[in-house]
Amino acid sequence: MIIIGELINGTRKAVAAAIQGRDAAFIKDLATRQADAGAAFIDCNAGTTADREPDDMVWVVETVQEVTDLPLAIDSPNPEALVAGLDAYVGSATPMVNSVTLEAERIEEILPIAAERGTNLVALAMDDQGVPTAAGQREDVAKRLIDTCVEAGLPPGNLYVDPVVTTQAHDQTTGPMILDAIANIHQAAPEVHITGGLSNISYGLPKRRLLNRVFVTMCMARGLDSGILDPTDEHLMAAICAGAVLLGHDEWCMGYITAEREGKLVE
Amino acid sequence: MIIIGELINGTRKAVAAAIQGRDAAFIKDLATRQADAGAAFIDCNAGTTADREPDDMVWVVETVQEVTDLPLAIDSPNPEALVAGLDAYVGSATPMVNSVTLEAERIEEILPIAAERGTNLVALAMDDQGVPTAAGQREDVAKRLIDTCVEAGLPPGNLYVDPVVTTQAHDQTTGPMILDAIANIHQAAPEVHITGGLSNISYGLPKRRLLNRVFVTMCMARGLDSGILDPTDEHLMAAICAGAVLLGHDEWCMGYITAEREGKLVE
Repeated sequence: MIIIGELINGTRKAVAAAIQGRDAAFIKDLATRQADAGAAFIDCNAGTTADREPDDMVWVVETVQEVTDLPLAIDSPNPEALVAGLDAYVGSATPMVNSVTLEAERIEEILPIAAERGTNLVALAMDDQGVPTAAGQREDVAKRLIDTCVEAGLPPGNLYVDPVVTTQAHDQTTGPMILDAIANIHQAAPEVHITGGLSNISYGLPKRRLLNRVFVTMCMARGLDSGILDPTDEHLMAAICAGAVLLGHDEWCMGYITAEREGKLVE
Repeated sequence: MIIIGELINGTRKAVAAAIQGRDAAFIKDLATRQADAGAAFIDCNAGTTADREPDDMVWVVETVQEVTDLPLAIDSPNPEALVAGLDAYVGSATPMVNSVTLEAERIEEILPIAAERGTNLVALAMDDQGVPTAAGQREDVAKRLIDTCVEAGLPPGNLYVDPVVTTQAHDQTTGPMILDAIANIHQAAPEVHITGGLSNISYGLPKRRLLNRVFVTMCMARGLDSGILDPTDEHLMAAICAGAVLLGHDEWCMGYITAEREGKLVE
C-alpha cells in the first residue's frame, strides 16, 4: 500500500492556525510522525485563502522538507499554489499533484502542470456534473480521466485514480458501488494506481475508525493499492499490514513480521 | 453474515475432555455464549473415536438444545454420527450437515442424508485429489459440487460452499486464490452461500486474530456471506458488523447502531 499521509491539511483548524502563525515545529512534527509511521508521500495542503495560498504552500513545503526526504503531494485546486509548491520541492523522488478532476477548468489548468513535469497525479472520478451517484458511472468517469491524462503524456503508473468516496449513512449503495468501481478500474487499467480519501465512508456513524479500517482492507481486496489517510492510526496501519500479507503483497510476510517485532501490530 | 459458531469442537482438548466426562455445564456455557454473541448455527463436533462418536454426538446435541433453540450444525465425516445427531435434533429451524466433499466416499454416503432430510449442507471444495492448489481449481471443484448437490435435490439456498482455507505463510498465493475463488463461485451461483473455516489462513504467523478479522472482511467484499468462526471474539464480530454496513447488508445501519448501543463495537 502506498500511503499518502493526510495530516498536514489546512482545512483542519489546528493546521490552519499553525500555517497562519508559521508554527514550523507543529508542521514538522506532523511530517515526522507520518514519515515514521510509514507514509510514502506527505500531503501538503495549505488550505488558506486564494491570495495567500501560494506563499503558504511554499512555506509548508519548505518546512516539511527540513525533516523528511519523502516525496510530497502538493494538494490544492489552485494551479498557482500547485506550481509554487512544486517549484519549492527540491527532493529527488517524483512528487505528486493532488488533484485533477474531469471538470473542464481543472483538467485544462492542472493536467498540463503534472504532464509537463512528469509528476504523479491524483485524479478524482468527477466531472462538471459532479460526483456520479449511479452504479457504473464512477468507473466511466475514471476511464475517461485515465485516457485524457495518458493522452496528455502522463505515464499510467504516475496516475492515482480516486473513485471519490462518499458517505454510506446517506446512501446504502455507496460502499458496494465504490468497491465495484475500484474492481472495474483495476481490471480496465491495472497499471494505474487506485487511491482515495477513504474516511468519508463513515461520516455520521459511530466508531468511525472501525468502519474506516474495515473499508480500507475491503478496498484493497478489490484492487485499491494506495490511500490518503492517517498513518499514525496504529489500528488502521496494522489492518493494512495484515491486508498486504493476505493479498500476497508482502513477500515472505517480512513486512508483517518486522512490524510485529517493532511492536506496531496492535490488535 | 451467517455465523456458524465453531467452539464446540471435539478436536479442542478442553471440549474433548468435557464430552468424555459428560460435563454438560461446560458445553452449555459454550453454546450459550455463542448464541448470545450472534451465532446463527451452533456447530456440534464430538470429535471422538468412531466407535463412540454417534453416542457422543447425541449427548452433545441434546445438551446444547437444553440452552438454545438455534439450529445446529452436525459436524462429522462419519455418516453414522451425522444421522445420530440429526435424529437427536428436535428444533424447528432447518439444521446443517457439516460437511460433504467431492470425494467419492463422502459424496455417496453424506449427500443422500442431507438431500433426503432437506438440511443445510456445508460442501468443501476438495475431491479425491485433495485440496486444489492451482488458481481456478477450487472454484471448478466447487461448481461440480454444487451441480452434484442440486441434482440430488438439495435447494441451492441450503448449500454452504467452503473454498477450503489453507495457510498463507506456506504459500503466498493462497489468499488471492481463495478470494478469487469466492468471487467466481458467488458470480456463478449467487443463490448458494459461501462459508469457511477462515482462521487457517493465519496459521504460523503472529497476531492471528488480526489477520483473521481482516481476512473475513476481505472475503465478505468478494461474496462470502457466512463463516465458521468464534462469535465470542468481539473484535472479529465488530469487524463483521462494520463489513455488513459497508456492503449495504445492514439496512439503515440499524444492526451496527444497535451493536454500538449494546457496547459490542469494540474498537
